[in-house]
Amino acid sequence: MDATSIVAALAKTARTASRTLTTATSQERTSALFDIAQAIEDRASEIIAANEIDISRGKSESMHPQTLDRLLLNHERVLSIADGARQVAALPSPLGNTLRESTLPNGLHLKQISVPFGVVGMVYEARPNVTVDAAVILLASGNAALLRGSSSAASTNEILVRVMREALATTTISPDVIQLVSSEDRESVKALLHARGLVDLVIPRGSAALIRMVVDEATVPTIETGAGVCHVYVDEYANLDIALPILINSKTHRPSVCNAAETLLVHEAVAEKFLPAALSALRDAGVVLHCDGTSKKYADFLEIPSIAVTEQDWCTEYGVLEMNVGIVPSVDAAAEHIAKYGTNHTEAIISESQDAINRFVAMADCAAIMINTSTRFTDGEQMGFGAEIGISNQKLHARGPMGLEAMTTSTWIVTGSGQIRK
Amino acid sequence: MDATSIVAALAKTARTASRTLTTATSQERTSALFDIAQAIEDRASEIIAANEIDISRGKSESMHPQTLDRLLLNHERVLSIADGARQVAALPSPLGNTLRESTLPNGLHLKQISVPFGVVGMVYEARPNVTVDAAVILLASGNAALLRGSSSAASTNEILVRVMREALATTTISPDVIQLVSSEDRESVKALLHARGLVDLVIPRGSAALIRMVVDEATVPTIETGAGVCHVYVDEYANLDIALPILINSKTHRPSVCNAAETLLVHEAVAEKFLPAALSALRDAGVVLHCDGTSKKYADFLEIPSIAVTEQDWCTEYGVLEMNVGIVPSVDAAAEHIAKYGTNHTEAIISESQDAINRFVAMADCAAIMINTSTRFTDGEQMGFGAEIGISNQKLHARGPMGLEAMTTSTWIVTGSGQIRK
Repeated sequence: MDATSIVAALAKTARTASRTLTTATSQERTSALFDIAQAIEDRASEIIAANEIDISRGKSESMHPQTLDRLLLNHERVLSIADGARQVAALPSPLGNTLRESTLPNGLHLKQISVPFGVVGMVYEARPNVTVDAAVILLASGNAALLRGSSSAASTNEILVRVMREALATTTISPDVIQLVSSEDRESVKALLHARGLVDLVIPRGSAALIRMVVDEATVPTIETGAGVCHVYVDEYANLDIALPILINSKTHRPSVCNAAETLLVHEAVAEKFLPAALSALRDAGVVLHCDGTSKKYADFLEIPSIAVTEQDWCTEYGVLEMNVGIVPSVDAAAEHIAKYGTNHTEAIISESQDAINRFVAMADCAAIMINTSTRFTDGEQMGFGAEIGISNQKLHARGPMGLEAMTTSTWIVTGSGQIRK
Repeated sequence: MDATSIVAALAKTARTASRTLTTATSQERTSALFDIAQAIEDRASEIIAANEIDISRGKSESMHPQTLDRLLLNHERVLSIADGARQVAALPSPLGNTLRESTLPNGLHLKQISVPFGVVGMVYEARPNVTVDAAVILLASGNAALLRGSSSAASTNEILVRVMREALATTTISPDVIQLVSSEDRESVKALLHARGLVDLVIPRGSAALIRMVVDEATVPTIETGAGVCHVYVDEYANLDIALPILINSKTHRPSVCNAAETLLVHEAVAEKFLPAALSALRDAGVVLHCDGTSKKYADFLEIPSIAVTEQDWCTEYGVLEMNVGIVPSVDAAAEHIAKYGTNHTEAIISESQDAINRFVAMADCAAIMINTSTRFTDGEQMGFGAEIGISNQKLHARGPMGLEAMTTSTWIVTGSGQIRK
């Protein structure tokens, strides 16, 4: 069979099986998810043994140490995956909630309720924890999961899926709600992205290149996740005592993730007061500075190494300890800079002026605006969603961190007593 | 300039102009929309004159009479377009609504509010009323509109856009929030569909072929609208007195639209009682019947002309007075038939049994489920939305009729006092 037929068959099997999720009670779904978590914990050694196969293959193929680390599972990491599954299991069900309700003059009763998508595909890279995280979030929201991970994690993904399916075998949920799409066959990704009518949604998670490929290629609906060129704007009326820790946290707490800051913008009125401390603190944290003309003068004067920022730098998601620094004459100028170079992800303003904040909020066009706090808080778990399947960087359907609710759609239930349209 | 550069320039101009929509008060937006409505009414003769150019070109190119009729504007139709604009103007603003709100243990205050997409493209066919309907709905929801109609309506669309822009010129809203994308250049559609980062969303409206092209081609987010193979299922426990008018209304009220029914499924227990009346009434309404084995026996016995239904027929959106008829042994069998042949649009059940209804609702996977009422009610205006930009036939973002709210996205506003992530 070719990849298209294989993916079609998996998707059809998954759709039929997904009915066991929707007809199950939320208690039955919860209990099945706890069973999955327990099975992962119980079978940790098997999982680690399978992971070792991927790791040694990775080493023999001279995989980048950072990628190898992402791929690696040890006992602690397996337990943490199981704990994550338990956390999701404990969340309230996002299904069957009444979203809107009304009675029309003709007596028709309208009720819009949340329902699962049905069959959702995930396309992702080396990190094997995504296999469990995604499956568990999708099942908790009533969806069957088609998982397409990286071939470099093939053995690990295979055992994780097997353990989850075997855990489901003793529940009311069909094991077929979790399907592993072969990572051997490169064509299987394309087949998944073109399975219109069979797959309701595909979510990519991974590098910018992967996400771009999925968005370009897919004819099924997708949600773009990822890229974040986030800014911290320190306003004229900023409380500089909080500005400095927020800046350092935004840049250095975990530079590789999408909600880390890449650019610092400082209002010219506080540049003299704020920049020396900011540049020194960034330097001390090991951050390479890309400075505009004015801020470079401060850096030079303070003998802090810096390079001249380029047009390309302003658009770059470094993902490492590098940061652009610019001086702006106003909150409007900051917002315009962000509109030009930002990726509509997370933008922070540090200000005690409600006017400046309001102006920034009105002009920002992003998933999350942080007022006097760190960009790092754009995160499903931090925001109290309990779980996150990714951070949407588009405006359609979901924007920002996506929890269980984002994995549902809706149905209108219209109840009448014989009404017909005039 | 090539199409890509032209569309990029239009989109950038539109985005800058869209700020005048978001910084305007909702009163200012409303008043601008009323001005547009008034201008359309005042300049009806100009609009009709321009439309005559399209009509006579259409005639000289032997355009199909039905298409010509869709293209035609007369005084009454222009007034109705203006009235439609007034209706939208009078709707409450969908912007700035609080969607979710919470305070986290660390003191961060989270508020998710509704905001516009920004720049939304419409790709549509001959009907020139869409030019105004879409522009007005998009403006009312704070979005700039890039309108790409059909070349057959070029003169009409041009004057409609000019009238709307000139009406805006005396308001606080920039006329540049409405942009006409040239229909002369076939490449302009492609450019619009690939304008990632410049256009936030493109909605196609028109034939199945147009929608398919947009969904296949687009790398910007799109919402699939359209196709409806809708079913009316008459259950064993149906009140047959209401079943018949609902069936006739669903099939014959306006057969060309997506919420018209294409297939009648009857529970075998009521076939003998219901089919004679149903088949006669459908025949009297001029409906061509495509019958399965059992229902054909009834038709033959009653001497009602019918043809044997084919596998292809079950999947066909006739759009005209033709209907499939099938007998099913149970509500589950009806739901399975619908899952196999339906398009997840609108499915009706006629039943007095709550058990049967619950089973049908649990198994149906569609935008709207009609219980004891006509499929024709899946419609934004009928459902009290006041306006409709299309009916989403996908599960992402919006499902079913889309009103003003569906044309918004959201932003998280996170307010802190110096919190950083641990």
